[in-house]
Amino acid sequence: MAARNRDDIIRLNGIEAERKITLPMCKTHFAKQPMKVQKGMQQYIYDDAGSEYLDCCGNIAHVGHCHPRVAHMGKKQLEILCTAQGFVTDVQSSYTKKLLTTVPPGLFDTVLLVNSGSEAVDLALRLAQNYTKRKDIICNQPSVFGHSSTLASFNYRYIKHTDFKPYSWVHHIPICNSYRGAYADSPTPVEDALAHMKDLILELEKKKTPVAGYLLETINTSGGNLISPTEYLAAATKLVKDAGGLVIVDEVLAGLGRLGMHWWPFQHFNFKPDILVCGRSLGNGQPLSAVLTTQAIACSILEYANSYGGNPVSCAMGMAVLEVISDEGMLLSSTAVGNHLKSGLTSLIDKHHNLGDVRGIGLSLVLDIVEAQTSKKPSKDIAERLSYLLRDKYKILVPADGPDGNCLFINPPLCFSLDNSRKLVQSVDLALTDVENGVTETVKSLYELNEEFQIPGDIFDGFMKRRPSSCDDDSVACKWPG
Amino acid sequence: MAARNRDDIIRLNGIEAERKITLPMCKTHFAKQPMKVQKGMQQYIYDDAGSEYLDCCGNIAHVGHCHPRVAHMGKKQLEILCTAQGFVTDVQSSYTKKLLTTVPPGLFDTVLLVNSGSEAVDLALRLAQNYTKRKDIICNQPSVFGHSSTLASFNYRYIKHTDFKPYSWVHHIPICNSYRGAYADSPTPVEDALAHMKDLILELEKKKTPVAGYLLETINTSGGNLISPTEYLAAATKLVKDAGGLVIVDEVLAGLGRLGMHWWPFQHFNFKPDILVCGRSLGNGQPLSAVLTTQAIACSILEYANSYGGNPVSCAMGMAVLEVISDEGMLLSSTAVGNHLKSGLTSLIDKHHNLGDVRGIGLSLVLDIVEAQTSKKPSKDIAERLSYLLRDKYKILVPADGPDGNCLFINPPLCFSLDNSRKLVQSVDLALTDVENGVTETVKSLYELNEEFQIPGDIFDGFMKRRPSSCDDDSVACKWPG
Repeated sequence: MAARNRDDIIRLNGIEAERKITLPMCKTHFAKQPMKVQKGMQQYIYDDAGSEYLDCCGNIAHVGHCHPRVAHMGKKQLEILCTAQGFVTDVQSSYTKKLLTTVPPGLFDTVLLVNSGSEAVDLALRLAQNYTKRKDIICNQPSVFGHSSTLASFNYRYIKHTDFKPYSWVHHIPICNSYRGAYADSPTPVEDALAHMKDLILELEKKKTPVAGYLLETINTSGGNLISPTEYLAAATKLVKDAGGLVIVDEVLAGLGRLGMHWWPFQHFNFKPDILVCGRSLGNGQPLSAVLTTQAIACSILEYANSYGGNPVSCAMGMAVLEVISDEGMLLSSTAVGNHLKSGLTSLIDKHHNLGDVRGIGLSLVLDIVEAQTSKKPSKDIAERLSYLLRDKYKILVPADGPDGNCLFINPPLCFSLDNSRKLVQSVDLALTDVENGVTETVKSLYELNEEFQIPGDIFDGFMKRRPSSCDDDSVACKWPG
Repeated sequence: MAARNRDDIIRLNGIEAERKITLPMCKTHFAKQPMKVQKGMQQYIYDDAGSEYLDCCGNIAHVGHCHPRVAHMGKKQLEILCTAQGFVTDVQSSYTKKLLTTVPPGLFDTVLLVNSGSEAVDLALRLAQNYTKRKDIICNQPSVFGHSSTLASFNYRYIKHTDFKPYSWVHHIPICNSYRGAYADSPTPVEDALAHMKDLILELEKKKTPVAGYLLETINTSGGNLISPTEYLAAATKLVKDAGGLVIVDEVLAGLGRLGMHWWPFQHFNFKPDILVCGRSLGNGQPLSAVLTTQAIACSILEYANSYGGNPVSCAMGMAVLEVISDEGMLLSSTAVGNHLKSGLTSLIDKHHNLGDVRGIGLSLVLDIVEAQTSKKPSKDIAERLSYLLRDKYKILVPADGPDGNCLFINPPLCFSLDNSRKLVQSVDLALTDVENGVTETVKSLYELNEEFQIPGDIFDGFMKRRPSSCDDDSVACKWPG
């Protein structure tokens, strides 16, 4: 089919232009009524009318939109050196060494820097396949591990389509969770899921195609924060390792302190991965992702090159992100604010029959929206109405997504405060009430919250009134504007 | 195998650190003796001792390392908005519209922004396969189309290894060139190459696996700048289109004005691609790549998402790159300086028996280093000695690479001047003489060139004394420092 008239296309503006030129098949939040963003600052973003929204889906802006310390390091590096592919730079080796300090000793000694999480997972699979000299990969579903041609076979959005044929060497096993999925109604979900894993490993051995690797999100973020029991993860990863396969954790969405306490989700559970994949949050918006592994596994691949992977600007900004997380105590605050938020949201379950479950750890939470708590039947319709109400009436961004379209994902920047948590709980409460009362139309004007919804946690308030940590260069004031 | 002691690893510095932590299997220039880079400015880079090198491999820093106008736009955007995945931004739609103005009308109306060239080629293949509802891809070899798991089957470095098995749906046909490759000794290379293409297309049709797409670098940059005759490209692409396949051009390495005259290499030849893949140079170091196609082809894919693709900082910097190329007349200067350089280098063929061929267009040139002009036998050894001599004695970076390791690749930033061209020709002349005289050890001190090697082209000198074009924000001085 011929191209549309280029000059007509070039005359398009704003949302129309992006929908027709850039986004015809790209995933957009609030797809029925997309939103134009002009500015981001801390945990807030601003639309083209200047309205402020509390950004609960801004997990890429990990330490806050345009954090001044991160921006400062990027700006400084932009004047010194932006690309050095094929050469060695101090800024890259400093960053990789710093990143290694975030993982427990004894696990990894090699860091491969790439751009996107997709590139990182794709590379991790190749490493596992080359190192084991095997091909077959087991992965948990529902999950999304990225958007390359290979990773389509690992993506629930593709797998569920009958006319899509995943690679025959990719094997899907259901996530072990007590609320949703294949084992939700079983009295013995862990035993059942482990039996499934054991059978699959044996079947692959019999077929002379033994398992090369087990790819999992430690907490199944993309599938709706379905968390497997610790005993399942420990035993399932041991089964794979005993069979000679490698364990690859994709911690792109939930990593780098989002869960609180630790830097990496796998540290919350009792197992050791062979390959850690991280990304998305590493550069606070600047493209930066990484594969952490051992030299022996890394060197199993013939050769690798990446034009922008480990570029000086991404490394400088990535370094600032790691420093900000440490210096601003974000591993602690993710736990504190996350617990506060989860307990507040969980308290709404008794009050609202459309709220089925609140799942997650730290600042990675999901509201599972249902037709009724008894049936647990997912309601995409109510989830979408809630997400538009929260956006247009309460100025909070919580998009609906997930395998059934019924999950509201809460993954805010880590500078999310207790005040933000209170406002979010209160607004979800009001929006659920709106839905119960049949309020469906969305309101475009700013809605002022007058009531104070009191839940415990005020002791953290002083701690939360954060100011950005200082830069290495003291002559430059690193402060949030305004 | 266990990880090495993390604390020992973290204590490593500089080149040792990068080799052991980051680069164990990553491609490095001058791999036997890597170089640490501290700074880049225009067409020069500086090592950790402060020595200045003329950067002839800096094709990522397309308009010059740290171009002040590009850096300014990046710095400005870093303070406003760095990430808006899933939302619409003006900076993204402005950039995609501007990028569409660089292609001839009637070809493309849709721009998909990703990070790396690898991501872009990978996406382009999926689009071709989905649109045609076929799987099989024909590609020219030797070539490197990127570094994803899928693209390994399209990469000569992998294909040549006997223990690597490319996907059965990837079909390699030799490049049509009169100096190197399968048809070099044929009196009728075009006819032979077209017959090969025709046979392959028929064979695929007979097997009921008809061709989905033909993936080619318009000028075969990664394979050593092997350029196919216009009549071959016109006829071969027509054969594929007549068989219902799409033509995908990978112009990641040679695109965006590097060849001079036009923005895109395919415009130098007489054919029309269905999908244009570009990257590498688009952001002047900032990760930015793109797929240009029609809406019908783009929408054949179920869904796509990319966390960083089209991020505001990359788009702002990409926009500045397009403006700089226009405002600083780089399409003209690539032609002028490129012609000057090529004629100077070509004049050395009569003088030096190790220089077999000088190939390329504009500022994408390759020196084919041979044992003797009569045998045309590639000499990796002499090419490497030349590249180290040029680096260490003449302070010019021209790495050796290519399928036989015997090509010296010249792809400098487009601000490369006639003075630079003169110095490069003179230095290649001297280095070839050094090799003939048995000079093998490299000299670490700066070598001063005293002679002036005169070749035509001085008329462009005034034009070449460039100053950076101004920014949109007139209050900010956009000038090269120092």
